[in-house]
Amino acid sequence: MLSDHSKGENFNIYLLIKSAENRTTSKGSPYIRLTLADRSGEIQANKWDASADDVKNFTAGKVVYLNATQDEYQSKPQLRIQEIRLANDEEPSDPSLYQISAPVSKKDLQNQINDLLFQITNPTWNRLVRNILNKYGDRYYEYPAAKKMHHAFRGGLAYHSLSIAKLALKISELYPQVDKSLLLAGALIHDIGKTVELSGPVGTEYTTEGQLLGHIVIGDEILVQAADELGFDLASEDMLIIRHLMISHHNKLDFGSPVVPKDLEAYILSKLDDLDAHIQMISSALQKTKPGNFSERIFGADNQPFYRTKEKPLSSDDENGDSPANRQGRLLQ
Amino acid sequence: MLSDHSKGENFNIYLLIKSAENRTTSKGSPYIRLTLADRSGEIQANKWDASADDVKNFTAGKVVYLNATQDEYQSKPQLRIQEIRLANDEEPSDPSLYQISAPVSKKDLQNQINDLLFQITNPTWNRLVRNILNKYGDRYYEYPAAKKMHHAFRGGLAYHSLSIAKLALKISELYPQVDKSLLLAGALIHDIGKTVELSGPVGTEYTTEGQLLGHIVIGDEILVQAADELGFDLASEDMLIIRHLMISHHNKLDFGSPVVPKDLEAYILSKLDDLDAHIQMISSALQKTKPGNFSERIFGADNQPFYRTKEKPLSSDDENGDSPANRQGRLLQ
Amino acid sequence: MLSDHSKGENFNIYLLIKSAENRTTSKGSPYIRLTLADRSGEIQANKWDASADDVKNFTAGKVVYLNATQDEYQSKPQLRIQEIRLANDEEPSDPSLYQISAPVSKKDLQNQINDLLFQITNPTWNRLVRNILNKYGDRYYEYPAAKKMHHAFRGGLAYHSLSIAKLALKISELYPQVDKSLLLAGALIHDIGKTVELSGPVGTEYTTEGQLLGHIVIGDEILVQAADELGFDLASEDMLIIRHLMISHHNKLDFGSPVVPKDLEAYILSKLDDLDAHIQMISSALQKTKPGNFSERIFGADNQPFYRTKEKPLSSDDENGDSPANRQGRLLQ
Amino acid sequence: MLSDHSKGENFNIYLLIKSAENRTTSKGSPYIRLTLADRSGEIQANKWDASADDVKNFTAGKVVYLNATQDEYQSKPQLRIQEIRLANDEEPSDPSLYQISAPVSKKDLQNQINDLLFQITNPTWNRLVRNILNKYGDRYYEYPAAKKMHHAFRGGLAYHSLSIAKLALKISELYPQVDKSLLLAGALIHDIGKTVELSGPVGTEYTTEGQLLGHIVIGDEILVQAADELGFDLASEDMLIIRHLMISHHNKLDFGSPVVPKDLEAYILSKLDDLDAHIQMISSALQKTKPGNFSERIFGADNQPFYRTKEKPLSSDDENGDSPANRQGRLLQ
Amino acid sequence: MLSDHSKGENFNIYLLIKSAENRTTSKGSPYIRLTLADRSGEIQANKWDASADDVKNFTAGKVVYLNATQDEYQSKPQLRIQEIRLANDEEPSDPSLYQISAPVSKKDLQNQINDLLFQITNPTWNRLVRNILNKYGDRYYEYPAAKKMHHAFRGGLAYHSLSIAKLALKISELYPQVDKSLLLAGALIHDIGKTVELSGPVGTEYTTEGQLLGHIVIGDEILVQAADELGFDLASEDMLIIRHLMISHHNKLDFGSPVVPKDLEAYILSKLDDLDAHIQMISSALQKTKPGNFSERIFGADNQPFYRTKEKPLSSDDENGDSPANRQGRLLQ
Amino acid sequence: MLSDHSKGENFNIYLLIKSAENRTTSKGSPYIRLTLADRSGEIQANKWDASADDVKNFTAGKVVYLNATQDEYQSKPQLRIQEIRLANDEEPSDPSLYQISAPVSKKDLQNQINDLLFQITNPTWNRLVRNILNKYGDRYYEYPAAKKMHHAFRGGLAYHSLSIAKLALKISELYPQVDKSLLLAGALIHDIGKTVELSGPVGTEYTTEGQLLGHIVIGDEILVQAADELGFDLASEDMLIIRHLMISHHNKLDFGSPVVPKDLEAYILSKLDDLDAHIQMISSALQKTKPGNFSERIFGADNQPFYRTKEKPLSSDDENGDSPANRQGRLLQ
Repeated sequence: MLSDHSKGENFNIYLLIKSAENRTTSKGSPYIRLTLADRSGEIQANKWDASADDVKNFTAGKVVYLNATQDEYQSKPQLRIQEIRLANDEEPSDPSLYQISAPVSKKDLQNQINDLLFQITNPTWNRLVRNILNKYGDRYYEYPAAKKMHHAFRGGLAYHSLSIAKLALKISELYPQVDKSLLLAGALIHDIGKTVELSGPVGTEYTTEGQLLGHIVIGDEILVQAADELGFDLASEDMLIIRHLMISHHNKLDFGSPVVPKDLEAYILSKLDDLDAHIQMISSALQKTKPGNFSERIFGADNQPFYRTKEKPLSSDDENGDSPANRQGRLLQ
Repeated sequence: MLSDHSKGENFNIYLLIKSAENRTTSKGSPYIRLTLADRSGEIQANKWDASADDVKNFTAGKVVYLNATQDEYQSKPQLRIQEIRLANDEEPSDPSLYQISAPVSKKDLQNQINDLLFQITNPTWNRLVRNILNKYGDRYYEYPAAKKMHHAFRGGLAYHSLSIAKLALKISELYPQVDKSLLLAGALIHDIGKTVELSGPVGTEYTTEGQLLGHIVIGDEILVQAADELGFDLASEDMLIIRHLMISHHNKLDFGSPVVPKDLEAYILSKLDDLDAHIQMISSALQKTKPGNFSERIFGADNQPFYRTKEKPLSSDDENGDSPANRQGRLLQ
Repeated sequence: MLSDHSKGENFNIYLLIKSAENRTTSKGSPYIRLTLADRSGEIQANKWDASADDVKNFTAGKVVYLNATQDEYQSKPQLRIQEIRLANDEEPSDPSLYQISAPVSKKDLQNQINDLLFQITNPTWNRLVRNILNKYGDRYYEYPAAKKMHHAFRGGLAYHSLSIAKLALKISELYPQVDKSLLLAGALIHDIGKTVELSGPVGTEYTTEGQLLGHIVIGDEILVQAADELGFDLASEDMLIIRHLMISHHNKLDFGSPVVPKDLEAYILSKLDDLDAHIQMISSALQKTKPGNFSERIFGADNQPFYRTKEKPLSSDDENGDSPANRQGRLLQ
Repeated sequence: MLSDHSKGENFNIYLLIKSAENRTTSKGSPYIRLTLADRSGEIQANKWDASADDVKNFTAGKVVYLNATQDEYQSKPQLRIQEIRLANDEEPSDPSLYQISAPVSKKDLQNQINDLLFQITNPTWNRLVRNILNKYGDRYYEYPAAKKMHHAFRGGLAYHSLSIAKLALKISELYPQVDKSLLLAGALIHDIGKTVELSGPVGTEYTTEGQLLGHIVIGDEILVQAADELGFDLASEDMLIIRHLMISHHNKLDFGSPVVPKDLEAYILSKLDDLDAHIQMISSALQKTKPGNFSERIFGADNQPFYRTKEKPLSSDDENGDSPANRQGRLLQ
Repeated sequence: MLSDHSKGENFNIYLLIKSAENRTTSKGSPYIRLTLADRSGEIQANKWDASADDVKNFTAGKVVYLNATQDEYQSKPQLRIQEIRLANDEEPSDPSLYQISAPVSKKDLQNQINDLLFQITNPTWNRLVRNILNKYGDRYYEYPAAKKMHHAFRGGLAYHSLSIAKLALKISELYPQVDKSLLLAGALIHDIGKTVELSGPVGTEYTTEGQLLGHIVIGDEILVQAADELGFDLASEDMLIIRHLMISHHNKLDFGSPVVPKDLEAYILSKLDDLDAHIQMISSALQKTKPGNFSERIFGADNQPFYRTKEKPLSSDDENGDSPANRQGRLLQ
Repeated sequence: MLSDHSKGENFNIYLLIKSAENRTTSKGSPYIRLTLADRSGEIQANKWDASADDVKNFTAGKVVYLNATQDEYQSKPQLRIQEIRLANDEEPSDPSLYQISAPVSKKDLQNQINDLLFQITNPTWNRLVRNILNKYGDRYYEYPAAKKMHHAFRGGLAYHSLSIAKLALKISELYPQVDKSLLLAGALIHDIGKTVELSGPVGTEYTTEGQLLGHIVIGDEILVQAADELGFDLASEDMLIIRHLMISHHNKLDFGSPVVPKDLEAYILSKLDDLDAHIQMISSALQKTKPGNFSERIFGADNQPFYRTKEKPLSSDDENGDSPANRQGRLLQ
């Protein structure tokens, strides 16, 4: 794994090419700027004096074998390549081995979400959610929840939706006035439009449709079409309310919702969405931070750095024998 | 007409009840607070010592005959009622006689808009617009364009759409790079969602659907369903672009568009919409302003007062023998 | 109860005087403007032709017996007083009988909070919270959480703190990287400064200290002094972090926190605080709203009206035989 | 032309030096960083190992002959210079051959603007505009309308003013309450202060006067002095109103207008100014964009990318046999 | 004096009518709503059953004799009129006896400002200031500095300018890099445009010119015309800089300056202007506040209430035997 | 001194290493990126082919002897190193010789501040300030007032506090309603929290405490603890007010004050703080600017460039025979 090595070390490793850019030095010699990754992180490397074959072979999505030395360039780690070639079929050449995924398997995500569906006791919302997950499930369990900001990994969309759904259950317990069916349904499908807004789990980009319509309007379109298929009346309160949850889930006009929440569950959904996204972003930044230090600034969290507390000796009071600071470092690995 | 009378004068008049609120004086006596109107304006009046019959008779939407004296209360005109009764069938008792309408007749609006349809040469957009106007035409030619802000009169929606369409034609002449078909189609249907967002031309309120979804999302739903009926592919560029014009026409996230314009025609449409609404609001405020004075503050125009220039002697250079200040006063009457 | 009566009805009732303002009519006659309340709501009434004795007797905090008729003035209910006198000792003259309180008894609040203290396993924070609740407990269990906005009732401060603490436990279960001790400690004492910022549970006002320092700085002072008493080092990480939770709990500089959250638990605390306050405000507004209607605009919730869904027939799937809309109406009663 | 060549190609070309910066490599060797341009675009190039003569010869404003190879550096095209020398007098050495200009000739601009003057029928404004164009005409027809944002080419100031004036005519036709004389006069001279704020058509910079006063205050000074010369009373309504159009034409305080529009024509002028600038910026960005793609982000248009629709087969309905996408690509060339 | 009387008291007094509004009661009887004032404050009163003569006599600017009783209406003091008549010539009928003025006499203001002129050693600025004060002096020493916000009293404009000039002298002593001539000149004339923007010292309103141009642009016009009269070159640095001070003195675009300060003295002037205005507003609000209490919210000071400290026993350390709290109460009387 | 040399020159010099970053070239060779400084300025230099000894020797805080040539890299000056070694004890190797300090000696700062203490006649505030300066004096007279923005030099904190105290005296003279004791006390200690927020005068960074609490809350903690030591009652008005000055001195919530000024002296202190910081920043930028030019944009001054006026011939009116432009260039040297 990349994270097992440090500055100055020479080692052999298999890595996935995340991006490959063909460039020329200021003196005119061609080279390839590679971003290489495995599940422990990513690193830059330059393939100097690139031949035409190199340009053809070393492209995004390929797995390569390298012998390299870890350097530093402009304060960031970089690999100095001694040898590089494509991995062959006997070697670990499946790209998915190198991609970060949700910390829960696709199977588990599906099982947990299917179990939750039974708690949506309102039949309109239950059938809507099932109809939509049937049609968009392939993408729903593969796509990331965002291009960069949070849950930007394979399966992130379903993982993020599931986390919010679990929060929704807890909230319904504590506040009996909350409609559990509605909040759960909203939690599971509020980001369904991302299956059209984003291009997919690898090299994620916004699609043309994503840029011109956005996942909120696409999500509403998906609801309208599901209602048509199921014969539900768009003017019924059940349809109005679930569409309202969809389009208000960014909470503010400024954040791209065409209306703000005007329903208790819509308000709560928008806040749980935000909370789960921030916990994931902050936790993920703290993982890369040494105890007793501040993380890098987190763009999605008001561009603030976050503090990771010092490692503490295990306290006997701590049931699972693990301090939070220790746990922060292990989270999501 | 109301505007023919002034303070201190006693007169007979037929007026429409716009709203009627049942109240009690601080000492406990019942009365009805009436807002009365004809096409020249509106005025407050109190029916003191209201009987049970009065409460039943004098309700919003009814036409009444009054003998009254014009007073002033808290610097605003008010009628002191000497006599009041419902207008009978031999009298001018049709409410529409007392409502402000678009300065162009419904017939004319329809003819002008039908003519413009031929200039939408792109067949997708042409058929979309025709499909939608066929289904929503009854409301399109009756509804106001807003509850209060601008074009808040019967037929205001179609009148505002037509004005923008005329601007769209001029813009297409001056800037040949503009797609006239697209801009015209957008001009005519961008506010179609208001036929569901608002309750109708009389006593206009936001509907529940209007409050929970807003006319932008409703307008997009109307486009999606029209495409389904006509068998158009939602993924085609023609559909993406016209939906983009619809949802971006408020120009800014802050103003309720879930995406901002990212297409030349979408940008222009959002600006022409804004320009026409402001010209209508400002002109309408100037009408009520004496030459050489400032109007009341106009809420929708950054809450500014606007200046009405002094009456000028007719200049012979002025082809239609009429100064702009004179014209401002007569506009829309 | 006030809510049992309606417009036009004459009835006898005991009510608490919440405020009493001595005024003169425009013609020069003295009267008292009373705000009267019991647990079901409040109402205005004028004691006309007030004598010197009336002015002395009818003051805030007194319980009165009335014979009155329910009227309306400027669209708001008002009592027309036929008879008014102070309640005597044989009558229900204890003011606390008429005040809204937290929906949980003081005893229960104390028990539940005392139980939670055992889950603060970090000894520094455990002793800090116990020290502070020992000193400020009398006020902590009596004060409201705010003057007007949310949890503005007797015991609201402890009730709000307890609700957040329960949310904190749920969050710690779902996200193991969260330090439960820290989040719980923060939940219980973050608003402790309000015991000095506000004047008390009746006729709540900001104190001079509250206006000049605010509850965030007062809360930090309370932490500093508790650490001094307990001999804790202010430079230790445990003290720094808990003070950081205290001062960052408004989440943004704009909302009065001198620093924004830069610690995972501080971030979460600020969001749970906001979430619980909003759920209370929205639920409380929905209680006063008829099913199928929008509430009044809620000042603390971006000044939006919220929708209360229509009453639904009880569904057999609903374990407690009660639809959310029904439950909304009963909440907090 | 630069745009005729592509990456990897070696070619001979004449280009204008737009800027020349003398630098040293990190190892201490001198070189010149050149920005070279013709009417089809611009490109960077380094003259390595620059001699004292090179430094003296290769300066902004000179035309050079090059033999060079087109490379790429940091994803941007760059020329690798094999040979470079000053163009001599037999060669195309006139800088104006290489600069972008308004798409209409200076002669045409003057004729069209002179024709429009006759439509300013108010004698005060007519004489003001003529006085000012007489004095500032030399610069008015040569200067760009901005340093970078929009119409940043020779003649851009007059071209932009003329476009707005044409829009003004159309608006006056559609809205008879508009004072055509006033709107036309404002359209033609609103940016006259730019003739002092900017340094000129080549290597445009802000002057000291421009930075300390800005073109709005300079424009007002020009109006005040013209009134003095023509003997007009500054207190007359005609002078007040035209000065108000001048100083309010940025529409908002935030954009540098010391007062916002409080006159119908002032409001319209500020909106037409904005509209024409945006159409020019967006069209110019779309020209450099491939059909079916998004442009670079446009700084002056809220920093958004704009979409260029796909090329469409020519439709027979399209009178001038040209689709808008095709036209966008050809515009302004 | 008005301030010598209190609620319930009956007394005789001479007062100036500041405004008189003719109204009708809801039952139709005419009355006049009077605002009456002397130098100690102002108060409302209604002249019931107003005759035609009353309406003619009791108008703004007249001095009246009253016998009246002090009442309260809607928590504000009000006079109940027993007798009212115009003051005759033997009585104190000069309106200026009843208006608040600057706490320094006009004579003193003139002397102090004339002395300061000698410290403007730069001859350009010295002659500019003298030229302008010669022309506008009559108004400069009479006008208020604002309609309502600060220094809203006769002579307020010169008094405010003088205060800033004194601050300017102190600043020049402490920071030798500051150009004293420039800062002094700016201090004295920065608000000269208010002599045209406002209507005068009594019943101050914005003029049409004031609303359409604003005092900043008018001030610049005054500078341009003074330069013309004195033969100064507008392109000289001295003229550019003093005009820059004029137009940037509101410090931010948002506050109506078309350019922000880009010169040290311009920056300082804008801050001293703001500081003096705030000290005047806050001090004036504290005067009306009892020790140990908060003032009313001050609109111009971020709408905050300000605290007046408790009266302290005179400390012997305090040279002038007067605590600041005592002094606050006496200031400006 | 660094500022005595220019581009192309080779010279010997002693400089302090302000920072040293170990890097590798893109080709893998190690080098050290040095920032070197003396009192006249700072400059970058690279030590190529850095040995292990170089990395150990050339670290921040060391003084080095160099033989070097002044170059330029990316438009900024840079030293090309021919020779570099540590300065030995016979050479000027004391780092403080190379650091910028306040323009007044530590001794003078102490004397002037001690003199000012006598003018704090209120005994509570006098003893508080003395207690705090006794405890924090070592740091107070050494620390800068900020990391980068203003007064970022040794002694900057005391120098900035003294400047504000002098302004406070002047203000108290001009406005007798101001409490001089309070304003002086606030001026001297408002930034005392910076002695804990910042790491010290060399290589100044924010401490963990500084990042989590900020200097405003730390300053309040220092006041609370001083009151405890001196036996002052925290509930007394004197303590409330001085704490209010401390926590409100950033003037706005947005700038990190948890409450805004609600006391006249608190308001004035916040404005004098801001004014002195800006004068220092602007003057310091003007020093590096040639007469007749604009400075670089000043981040702390709304990111604006400031104009330095042209050198003027010495005028005989100018008592100290020195024009402001000349003085600006010499200030703080």
